[in-house]
Amino acid sequence: MTALASLTNHQVRLAQRLVGAPTRDNWSFTTEPVQEPAEGGVLVKTLALSLDPAMRGWMNEGKSYIPPVGIGEVMRAGGIGRVVASKNPAFAVGDTVSGGLGVQEYLLIPQDQINRNGLFRIDLRAGSLTQWLNVLGMPGMTGYFGLMDVGQPKPGETVVISGAAGAVGQTVGQIARIKGCRVVGIAGGQAKCDWVVKELGFDACIDYKAGDVKAGLKEHCPKGVDVYFDNVGGEILDAVLARLARGARIIICGAISQYNNTTPVQGPKNYLSLLVNRARMEGIVVFDYADRYPVAVAEMAGYLKDGRMKSREDVVAGGVAAFPEALAKLFTGENFGKLVLQVASE
Amino acid sequence: MTALASLTNHQVRLAQRLVGAPTRDNWSFTTEPVQEPAEGGVLVKTLALSLDPAMRGWMNEGKSYIPPVGIGEVMRAGGIGRVVASKNPAFAVGDTVSGGLGVQEYLLIPQDQINRNGLFRIDLRAGSLTQWLNVLGMPGMTGYFGLMDVGQPKPGETVVISGAAGAVGQTVGQIARIKGCRVVGIAGGQAKCDWVVKELGFDACIDYKAGDVKAGLKEHCPKGVDVYFDNVGGEILDAVLARLARGARIIICGAISQYNNTTPVQGPKNYLSLLVNRARMEGIVVFDYADRYPVAVAEMAGYLKDGRMKSREDVVAGGVAAFPEALAKLFTGENFGKLVLQVASE
Repeated sequence: MTALASLTNHQVRLAQRLVGAPTRDNWSFTTEPVQEPAEGGVLVKTLALSLDPAMRGWMNEGKSYIPPVGIGEVMRAGGIGRVVASKNPAFAVGDTVSGGLGVQEYLLIPQDQINRNGLFRIDLRAGSLTQWLNVLGMPGMTGYFGLMDVGQPKPGETVVISGAAGAVGQTVGQIARIKGCRVVGIAGGQAKCDWVVKELGFDACIDYKAGDVKAGLKEHCPKGVDVYFDNVGGEILDAVLARLARGARIIICGAISQYNNTTPVQGPKNYLSLLVNRARMEGIVVFDYADRYPVAVAEMAGYLKDGRMKSREDVVAGGVAAFPEALAKLFTGENFGKLVLQVASE
Repeated sequence: MTALASLTNHQVRLAQRLVGAPTRDNWSFTTEPVQEPAEGGVLVKTLALSLDPAMRGWMNEGKSYIPPVGIGEVMRAGGIGRVVASKNPAFAVGDTVSGGLGVQEYLLIPQDQINRNGLFRIDLRAGSLTQWLNVLGMPGMTGYFGLMDVGQPKPGETVVISGAAGAVGQTVGQIARIKGCRVVGIAGGQAKCDWVVKELGFDACIDYKAGDVKAGLKEHCPKGVDVYFDNVGGEILDAVLARLARGARIIICGAISQYNNTTPVQGPKNYLSLLVNRARMEGIVVFDYADRYPVAVAEMAGYLKDGRMKSREDVVAGGVAAFPEALAKLFTGENFGKLVLQVASE
């Protein structure tokens, strides 16, 4: 334990609010000595961090589903870590844990913040470390509860997913397939489209960079779209709205096409299709389902084990110093699979 | 019965499709001799016609919840009429009926079209002739099922209604009040606002012509909006989206602010409030509830009888020749209460 005092914690803090896409200038890089936990506390060493579109929202001022990250605060991030010191009986040195670690190498959590942090032990037999940030983590939970609780797909229905090769999208599409739906993805580029069709078993995938999404929807959704899981907003949301089946459900999970806008958000001009088709558009925030995560994790771990579900992570090396450039990949669509920042190897 | 042959049926037909607001040029005026019904048929004399925002949509080409009115066809309209000749045992001469009469003075309905037309006998003890086009008619049914089935208001919740003094709006607001909700209307002009507050018992009304709807919502909905019944779309929908309570429900009933647009529909740029607030936006088409109309009519007739519900109709005289100018009142917001075109006195 005495070795801890010699360690340095490298951190990435939000330096300023921003307009448009985040750049290196939005961040400051700080160091702190690593400290022993007090009674009841835990010290966690970050192994990997989850990089998510939602981070862009947390950087903005103003009311949202959780408070924004304050200027000068360590950037919020979920991650997987290892307990390196513990004065809490619930956590032993060597435990692998998931929680709100922040973009930093170490997190000291006092006893009274363990619950608020959402820290819990994970079982690497259920899935790999990066899978715990993907299908077994927040993206997987978002996909699972968004699709099942809000989308309520029935066998034989057509489910369309934008950001299909992303962390949430790959989970949604595979669950929909397992539940007996016709699954059509929308993704950027032939490689992503090939992957979701050939590897994940989607029925079709529309490459929005290559052509007309409307034409693709017409071809691949001849009976209309029953469930649309929207991660992107913008033009693609409008194209799907124009193709809804009667009684369709749209899950609003995000709008990555709009997050870096310097102009106002583009509202879905085809929203009156909701009226014509008696359809529903509903938002989801994953934290509302926290008490049911274990059930979803168990179901998905089963699918991973029996091979019905695959997962793909895009792991960026370089530690916390590489965070700004890694995050930017999300908004260019450059990442392929769940974007993970590797912070330490063990 | 021999007198029928001497009668002329004046009709209004859709002469051309249009961009923007309808004018007299969009219509042609024709006459036909009135004919005896064949075996099983009914001849109905139009007494009053319902003029509705939905008519603007029926004038457009293209897919909607019902087919458009064809060029040269008699304009579709719901109305109340009197049976003047019948060879059908279900209808007697003198019966008052409601159905899809069209903008014309007489409608001859062959036996095989009676069901499709939606023709049914009405009971003038339940409500007056114009009330049967208002709270007991399509607008009332739309308000009732939109609010109750889609909005699912709970006592104590805040319900906001745009087009509050209109046919649907007045019904929705009064039902919400009866169900124990806090009711806030949005209407154009002091007279309409005063009426919904003083006469209909709304808790407040925001005059969108006089000032800032956002400020009004902040003042009158301090805990946010739980249910929003949207008849107008546009800026007002956006203002309400910015003020949603957690778990809010938005009923998309119409978008009169957008129907005469010559530019694309203005999509709700604040739609991501659905995500932040785990809220829902859902469309309603009244015809889906046809099998439950009698239940709703009975409930509302009870409210009319015991005085808990009032209704206001704006009756325009002048017969079918006055149809073009009467319809235009809807889109200028000039009408005050349910707009009705009187076609014959008896």
